[in-house]
Amino acid sequence: MLATVMHGPGDVRFEQIDDPKLLKPTDAIIQLSATCICGSDLWPYRGLQPQDEPAQMGHEYCGVVIEVGSEVRNVKPGQFVVGSFCLSDNTCPHCEFGFQSSCEQVEFMTGAQAPYARVPLADGTLVATSEMPDLELIPHMLAVSDVLGTGWYAAVAAQVREGGTAVVVGDGAVGLMGVLAAKELGAARIIAMSRHESRQKLALEFGATDIVEARGEEGIESVKELTKGIGAESVLECVGMEQSMQQAIGVCRPGGTIGYVGVPHGVSFDGQEMFFAQKRMLGGPAPVRRFLPDLMDRVLKGTIKPGKVFDHVLPLDQVAEGYKAMDERRAIKTMLRVD
Amino acid sequence: MLATVMHGPGDVRFEQIDDPKLLKPTDAIIQLSATCICGSDLWPYRGLQPQDEPAQMGHEYCGVVIEVGSEVRNVKPGQFVVGSFCLSDNTCPHCEFGFQSSCEQVEFMTGAQAPYARVPLADGTLVATSEMPDLELIPHMLAVSDVLGTGWYAAVAAQVREGGTAVVVGDGAVGLMGVLAAKELGAARIIAMSRHESRQKLALEFGATDIVEARGEEGIESVKELTKGIGAESVLECVGMEQSMQQAIGVCRPGGTIGYVGVPHGVSFDGQEMFFAQKRMLGGPAPVRRFLPDLMDRVLKGTIKPGKVFDHVLPLDQVAEGYKAMDERRAIKTMLRVD
Repeated sequence: MLATVMHGPGDVRFEQIDDPKLLKPTDAIIQLSATCICGSDLWPYRGLQPQDEPAQMGHEYCGVVIEVGSEVRNVKPGQFVVGSFCLSDNTCPHCEFGFQSSCEQVEFMTGAQAPYARVPLADGTLVATSEMPDLELIPHMLAVSDVLGTGWYAAVAAQVREGGTAVVVGDGAVGLMGVLAAKELGAARIIAMSRHESRQKLALEFGATDIVEARGEEGIESVKELTKGIGAESVLECVGMEQSMQQAIGVCRPGGTIGYVGVPHGVSFDGQEMFFAQKRMLGGPAPVRRFLPDLMDRVLKGTIKPGKVFDHVLPLDQVAEGYKAMDERRAIKTMLRVD
Repeated sequence: MLATVMHGPGDVRFEQIDDPKLLKPTDAIIQLSATCICGSDLWPYRGLQPQDEPAQMGHEYCGVVIEVGSEVRNVKPGQFVVGSFCLSDNTCPHCEFGFQSSCEQVEFMTGAQAPYARVPLADGTLVATSEMPDLELIPHMLAVSDVLGTGWYAAVAAQVREGGTAVVVGDGAVGLMGVLAAKELGAARIIAMSRHESRQKLALEFGATDIVEARGEEGIESVKELTKGIGAESVLECVGMEQSMQQAIGVCRPGGTIGYVGVPHGVSFDGQEMFFAQKRMLGGPAPVRRFLPDLMDRVLKGTIKPGKVFDHVLPLDQVAEGYKAMDERRAIKTMLRVD
C-alpha cells in the first residue's frame, strides 16, 4: 500500500510499503475511514525529536475492522471502531484504575496515516459502534481518538466542575478541545487564552465565555481581573512549554487544579515554589480509553462536534502538504481523507 | 513575662520580655494551656534558616481567651480555644474555598512558647469549645493546632479514601499524625516507612498495618511487593527532602495522589518525568482552620488521641532542653507545660 513515512525533519513521503499484517494473536487490522496529523507529529518534523530511521507516521484513527487475531474477542470484522493512541489491555490494575495510558502492556500506536493499519491489543484498545455511523460523523469520531480525548482529559484532570471557572492555556487543537470539554463538563466560565483570530472564533463556538489575548504576566493579570482577583479553580495546560506552564500556575487559584496534557519540554518545578503556591497538578498522556464509550456516544447523539477542529482537509496522498500547512500554522489541524 | 526567644542557632533562651498586648481591634490575647516545639522550629535552631535578630518562638497553641479587641465577635474572655499556626480571616474567597493557609490576610503565628500570646485575626483563626475541656484532653487539643492538622491535610491532599491504600513517608511527628489521619479517613492499608523502633510502635498504635524500614530504591521495591507491584493510590510525604520526595513518587501508583506537607528544601521536579509518571500532587502549608471544628470534636469525643505524639513533656522554663532533645532525636516532639 501507499502510506506516510517520515525520513527526517521536513521530509514526509507518501510511498510504497508492505501492507500491515497480524503479528500477534491479539492484533487487529483496520481499514481507516479517515486519519489526521497530530501536533506531536511536528516535533520530529521540526527536528526537535531525534529520529534514527524512517518511521511510519500516524496515531489517530477510526475505521472498519477487516481482520482479527485468534485471541481477539471484543471486536470482529465489519465493525466500525475507534481506538486511542495509547494501546492498552484494559484489564491490568492501572487500566482498571482508569489510567490506561500507564497500562502494564502500554504501547503507542503508529502507522495510522495509511489506508490500513495494525492495532495491537485490539480487545483492550478498540471500541466498536453498534452500527456503521453516517459519513458526516467520521471527522468527529476521528477527533475522539486523540485530540478530543486529550483535551477531555485536561478538563477531567483539572477537575472542571458544574458551574466552575476554567482557564485554557493554549489555542492549538488540544486547547480548543479542552474548551469543548470544559463546556460539556458544565463550567460556567471558560477563559480561552488565544491571540489568533480564527482560533478565538472556534473557541467561542466550542463554549469559551472570555478570550484573553495577553500572555505571561500581563495575561495572568487579565485573568485575575476577570476573576475578581481570585484566579480559576481549573486550569487546562495544553502546550507544554515553560512559559505556558508558568502562565497556568499563575492563573490558578490556591487549592485549584492544573491538568497538563502538553508533553513538557524544558519544564521544571521548584518544590518550595509549588508548595507555597498550593496548586494541585495532574498531567500525563491521556487515558483516552477511559473516555471513549462516553465520547463516542456524545458524537453519535450529535451533542458534540469536535471534528470542527479540522480546518484543513486533504486526500491522504497529499499528506506532505498537510504537515507543511500545520508547520507553517496555516492549519490548526489537518484531516486526511482515505477515499 | 518569661518566654522563649531564639537568639541564634542552638541558642534558645527563656527570658523576660514584654507581656503581649492587643495591637489591633481584631486581636485576642490568650493564656496558654500548653504549647510545644515544632519540627520546623529546628530549621533556625540548626542554622539552616537564616535569622537576623532574636525571635519569639512558638506557633502551636491552645488556651483560654483573656482579652479581645473591639472588633472581635466570635470568641470572648473565658472561652477555651484552639487556633491554627496560619492566621486567617476565614471570610476571604481563599478561606471560603477551604484554603485558609492562602488567606488574603494570612499571617503566621509566633510567640506561643510563652504563658500568654497575642492571636491576630482572632475571629477567623480561633475556634472555641462550648465548655472547658478536661485537663487530660489538653495535649490532644494542642496537637490539633498544627501537627495533627498538618498530618490530616497530608491525608486529605493525598485523597485517602475508605478502603484504600496509603503510604506515609516520614516517621516524624507529622508523619505519625498522617498515619492516624489515614486510619480515621478509612484507609484499609497503611504502610508506614520508618526505621526507628519507638516511632514504628507509635505508628502501629495509630493504625499502620505495615512497616517498611528500607529507604530509597529498596524501600520503593518493598512497598511495590506489599501492593502486588501496583503502588499506593495515596502517598503522604511528610519530610520535604529530595530523597523522601523521590520515594513518595516511586511508591505512588499511576493516577495516584501525593499530598506533601514537609516544606520542600532543595526539591525540584522535572516536568517530563512528572508527566509520564502520571501522579497527582498537592502540597502546601496546611489549611488547618478547615479541619479544626471536626478534629476538636473527635478529640472531645475521645475518638482520637493525637497527643500521644508528645513523648517528652517539660515545664515551659525548660524549653531549651526541649529543643535539644528534639535536635538530638531523643524526642519525637516536646510538649511544654504552662503551670
